[in-house]
Amino acid sequence: MERTPSALIITLLTDFGSTDYFVGSVKGVILSINPHVTIVDLTHEVASFSVAEAAFLLHSTYPYFPKGSIHVAVVDPGVGSDRRPLLVHAGGFYFLAPDNGILSYVFRDIPNYQCVELTETKFHLPARGNSFHARDVFAPVAAWLSRGTPIGQFGRGSHHPTTIPLPAPRHTDNALEGEVIYIDRFGNLITNITKNDVDHCGPRDQLTITIGDARCRGISRCYADGSQDAPSTIVNSSGHLEIFFYEGNAAHHLHAKIGIYVTLTGR
Amino acid sequence: MERTPSALIITLLTDFGSTDYFVGSVKGVILSINPHVTIVDLTHEVASFSVAEAAFLLHSTYPYFPKGSIHVAVVDPGVGSDRRPLLVHAGGFYFLAPDNGILSYVFRDIPNYQCVELTETKFHLPARGNSFHARDVFAPVAAWLSRGTPIGQFGRGSHHPTTIPLPAPRHTDNALEGEVIYIDRFGNLITNITKNDVDHCGPRDQLTITIGDARCRGISRCYADGSQDAPSTIVNSSGHLEIFFYEGNAAHHLHAKIGIYVTLTGR
Amino acid sequence: MERTPSALIITLLTDFGSTDYFVGSVKGVILSINPHVTIVDLTHEVASFSVAEAAFLLHSTYPYFPKGSIHVAVVDPGVGSDRRPLLVHAGGFYFLAPDNGILSYVFRDIPNYQCVELTETKFHLPARGNSFHARDVFAPVAAWLSRGTPIGQFGRGSHHPTTIPLPAPRHTDNALEGEVIYIDRFGNLITNITKNDVDHCGPRDQLTITIGDARCRGISRCYADGSQDAPSTIVNSSGHLEIFFYEGNAAHHLHAKIGIYVTLTGR
Repeated sequence: MERTPSALIITLLTDFGSTDYFVGSVKGVILSINPHVTIVDLTHEVASFSVAEAAFLLHSTYPYFPKGSIHVAVVDPGVGSDRRPLLVHAGGFYFLAPDNGILSYVFRDIPNYQCVELTETKFHLPARGNSFHARDVFAPVAAWLSRGTPIGQFGRGSHHPTTIPLPAPRHTDNALEGEVIYIDRFGNLITNITKNDVDHCGPRDQLTITIGDARCRGISRCYADGSQDAPSTIVNSSGHLEIFFYEGNAAHHLHAKIGIYVTLTGR
Repeated sequence: MERTPSALIITLLTDFGSTDYFVGSVKGVILSINPHVTIVDLTHEVASFSVAEAAFLLHSTYPYFPKGSIHVAVVDPGVGSDRRPLLVHAGGFYFLAPDNGILSYVFRDIPNYQCVELTETKFHLPARGNSFHARDVFAPVAAWLSRGTPIGQFGRGSHHPTTIPLPAPRHTDNALEGEVIYIDRFGNLITNITKNDVDHCGPRDQLTITIGDARCRGISRCYADGSQDAPSTIVNSSGHLEIFFYEGNAAHHLHAKIGIYVTLTGR
Repeated sequence: MERTPSALIITLLTDFGSTDYFVGSVKGVILSINPHVTIVDLTHEVASFSVAEAAFLLHSTYPYFPKGSIHVAVVDPGVGSDRRPLLVHAGGFYFLAPDNGILSYVFRDIPNYQCVELTETKFHLPARGNSFHARDVFAPVAAWLSRGTPIGQFGRGSHHPTTIPLPAPRHTDNALEGEVIYIDRFGNLITNITKNDVDHCGPRDQLTITIGDARCRGISRCYADGSQDAPSTIVNSSGHLEIFFYEGNAAHHLHAKIGIYVTLTGR
């Protein structure tokens, strides 16, 4: 079905949590400049200071929004230091983020992008300190952007933004060795092995997945086809191979952490 | 006072938590189809896989929304299996949910409803897997529904939706025996004994409530009339008898869990 | 840059958490009366019953919203007792709150305010009990207010609202003795010593801050200038002196709680 042109949307992805005054004041600043914009929380529960986790979550969410959406992603331990605040236009989306690697998946997936450093302070709040650029820099810029200010007015062109390593699975003799890159609230273990990797490895019912001492055969079609007592796997909703226990917590059962290896073999 | 006709509202009730990419991508899909709809989070913190808890929370919230609102309730361990995705029109509201009992209170309270199974895949997202129907099925259907698509177009009529048992208090010789069906964030113990049950049992100051070894006499008019050192009771804001400690946590004090019995006697 | 006139905004600040039916039903009531208002969650994670914490969070957030915004702040252990429900008009903002001190910073910062007790029950929901005024009193009044009902119609003028003590730092012989008034999700320790206090105490690089057994010299310009192994200080985004560990949790490292003393000396 066709889509309507989007109303303007600003999304927020941070490690600010939902207990403090941080998110509320960011929204107040945005709505003071553009009261008609729709603000959507992606999440504010990124592990404190975890740029890698924020990068993965942004990657898994932003494509579902209408083109023209403005994604503000701020996990920013270097706030106020010489790290640059950036505005990136890529694939029809806008991204506002510190230059610390949080946009690494965006740069990987959309090689043609335009990048501006937010040097024009007339679009910023008069600073009350140097520790909250989400409120004082990114929020007002997002709001003015949503009102149609051209991106070139926010600062000077910028190049070579920072990226973080995005772990890719490695081919060994007869296997593909990946790793767990994210654990969701259900305890499901999301790996960096993609649907594409799985499809190239052989028929799904003949694949073997190994994680630590555990091994499972075949890939389930849905969670309910998995076991409650042993690990099962699925190609999940973000297109990644995932280890789960049906109605259980795989991370607890397997004592698994981010970075643990997962091996996929054709038989 | 009279009410204005409502703008269109979609509410979300899930066990997705607020830490992952789940809720954000559901909202992105909705806003891509209908950028003018208002999205309201009921809660995303339902205990993982707990259909009964979700059913109670939906029951306690949906009537406060304007007629025409679309309530999307997804706690869905069976996602992708042969459990049916449903659209229900009842009492002027729309409900989108898996057919697993999450709408049990709705079916009990509103016997005349229309039910459609979501078989028309042209309204769904092209699937990236079979594990996230909130994003790929319920969200786009909710959005198209909010744009005025008639409900018959989403699929075929469906009958005999699944329900779960809704525990009712039992009359014994000279008492009413109920149970704790929900514990809120304050540790208050909400029972399945209703205001109506209480009113039929006798004057409120002569009632005795027993829970485990604890006993309390009379029903408080407000929390501040209760004790900080002993359990008190109130007929709460959802119309249920509730056990509480003033400014304290009754669940902790009484080591109470969902399912524990509560007895109400007239004197 | 100039600002546009604001659309109408209602903010919510409570200790209701995000797991129960409380917040959802408050929003349903508001949207049933005014479906066009924008609702913003400040936070619902105030520590249960903590009026002081709610007062500080409101103080740190409300000024960032456009004038005309309606701030509903409900931490209300005395709900249903004889404590009064208030509507306050101050500094161009509206505040709806129980009369228990939650507006103490507002009254301190804006001496000229208008205060009404919400006695006109025709603007309230028909009560289902006496335990949820956020839904049954404050929400409908906020919604009618957002539709333009003059504030005098909601009840009679009220005077001498309740305030709580707002701890101020004390001058001793050659030091300023303050205390920790808030701990944020990062474990940063926010004190009642303000930017103004700091500026009057001497050059920032010559100041000494003592907290328990720990001592630090000078005030950092940004978090990244601090240490990961020892406490550092910053004048933070709410204008207060704050103790932090770079990318660490100061509350854990220092075993600090709200109320612990912090001393600032000029050298």
